[in-house]
Parts: sequence; structure tokens; C-alpha cells
Amino acid sequence: MTKDLIETIFSRRSIRKYTDEPVSDDDIKTMLEAAMAAPSASNSQPWHFVVVMERATLDALAEAHPHGKMLAQATLCIAVCGDPAISDYWQQDCSAAIENLLLAVAALGLGAVWLSAYPREKRVALARRILSIPENIVPVNLISIGHPAETKEPRTQYNEARVHRGRW
Amino acid sequence: MTKDLIETIFSRRSIRKYTDEPVSDDDIKTMLEAAMAAPSASNSQPWHFVVVMERATLDALAEAHPHGKMLAQATLCIAVCGDPAISDYWQQDCSAAIENLLLAVAALGLGAVWLSAYPREKRVALARRILSIPENIVPVNLISIGHPAETKEPRTQYNEARVHRGRW
Repeated sequence: MTKDLIETIFSRRSIRKYTDEPVSDDDIKTMLEAAMAAPSASNSQPWHFVVVMERATLDALAEAHPHGKMLAQATLCIAVCGDPAISDYWQQDCSAAIENLLLAVAALGLGAVWLSAYPREKRVALARRILSIPENIVPVNLISIGHPAETKEPRTQYNEARVHRGRW
Repeated sequence: MTKDLIETIFSRRSIRKYTDEPVSDDDIKTMLEAAMAAPSASNSQPWHFVVVMERATLDALAEAHPHGKMLAQATLCIAVCGDPAISDYWQQDCSAAIENLLLAVAALGLGAVWLSAYPREKRVALARRILSIPENIVPVNLISIGHPAETKEPRTQYNEARVHRGRW
């Protein structure tokens, strides 16, 4: 048993400080299973995952991404990529998979932060270059992951002003 | 306590058959709290939620959406909308919120299915027309929700071919 679903949704926060303990292969497998259980349009599953544990590659990503310096402490990065040739909905489907992955990270007691790539051209290019991602595949983001060295309070951010009843 | 996180991720399936029991206000609030707990770029929260329980509106959506006939049985529809003026990442952020909402639905013992709208122009137009959504706001999808009248097995869909180690 991992943590309760609703509790985990509220406790998932952006974690940017990590210990040097590596993430286990079992935990990586659970994250990827969770990601690939996401819904996708016509179940087309237009996603790929580049799993990075090598220090030199993590450091190269940390240096290249404008908000990625925490990758120099992270023990794991997963780049989630979409294949636009498979589906018009690749960006939405990959984002659902990313959210499942982030929730699995939180449920496993690990910490992560979503580093945006697409649609910023320079960030897409740096991820392609460092991770050898083909030109027809789009890196949606980089997820920096590790054992947490900071804690944050759960929160809902519920905002009634964003809720419209019956119609807009 | 609702269900375990990882178990719920695997058990969330597209549910298209429902009983006529209405969804409670408490459950709707929990879904919206879960959705708005999603991460967003710079925490910009570029999302809106149109909550529809009126039979006539649900029936109009069922008739207009090409894959929406289950809305004629659903007791609830939530249209998740993005505001592109707030963030370049509106589509990704809304999709993370949608996935949180779908997982909350599953954890509460309810059932739902994601009906695509954006980027299909006709579907965006029908949602705007029926739900009075402003021109500057984009309906990403319609979520058909109800008490389930069908069950499906949990699954992971894990596919090792989509995993690239170290680099692509």
C-alpha cells in the first residue's frame, strides 16, 4: 500500500532539494507503470520516457535548462516525450501521464519537480541534443526526481472563482 | 480515506455506463479540489471548470459531441477550460488538472470518461455554444461522470519499448 489517493494529490508539491540516495529500480518501474496507465485519446499512448541516472548527463541538463539547477543534486531525471504523428492530442495525453508519474513519486515518498520544455524552442533543442531525442519526437518536459531533502505542506489551491455552475 | 494512490491509478478506466443516482455536492467539491491541486507552470493555474448537472444541457452535449452519447445517461459533466492568455503551458496544465480530477472520481467510487474537444474546432465550438464559454477561453475536454453501471479490470499498459535508458 502506498498513500491514499486524495491525500497524495494534496501533498504532491514541487520538491527541488534531494539527498544523494539513489532511486531504486523498483520505484522507477512503479513510476513508469503509473505514467503509462494514463488515459489517451483512442488509447493511442503517444508517449516515450527517457530515464537518466548518469551523473554527467544530469549535470549537463542542470547546466543547460534555465530553471534546472536542482538536477545537479537529483539522482534521476525522466524526460517525457510525445510523438505528434500518433495523435493530435499528444500534448494532453503526455501531460496526463506526467501527472500520474508525479503522483506515484509522491506516493513512494520521493520528490520531483516538472521542468517545462515544449513549446519553448531552446528547451526542446537542449533536451534533444543532450538526450539524443529524434527530430520527430517532442520532449514535453524534464522531471527532476530524488529522495526529498525538503518538506512542504499539503494544499488544495481550490478557487471558487474558477468554477462555473450550469454554464459559464 | 479513499483508495490507495497506485491502485487507483491502475483501476481508473473509461466508464461510459452510469446509474441515475446523482453525484453529491461533496464529491464534486473533492473532484474540483483535486483538479486545482495540480502543478502548473509558475503556478499560474490557467484553468476553469464548468459544472453541468441540468438534464437538458447534458442531453444537448450528448447530441452535439460525436463521441458523447453517454452524456445522455451521465448525471454530471465537467468541462475543463484553459486560458491561453495566462500561460503558454495552458494545455499541459489543464491536462494535469484533468488527470487529478479523473483519479479523484475513481477514488470516490465514481466513473468518468474524457471526451476530447481542443484542438478539434467543431468540438470547441459546440462546447462554447452550449456552455456559453467566452471566445478567449478554450474548452480542452468534457468529462462525463456518474455512478458506474459497468466495471473494468485494473491495468498498467506498461510497455518497455517506450522506455529509453540513459539517452534515446
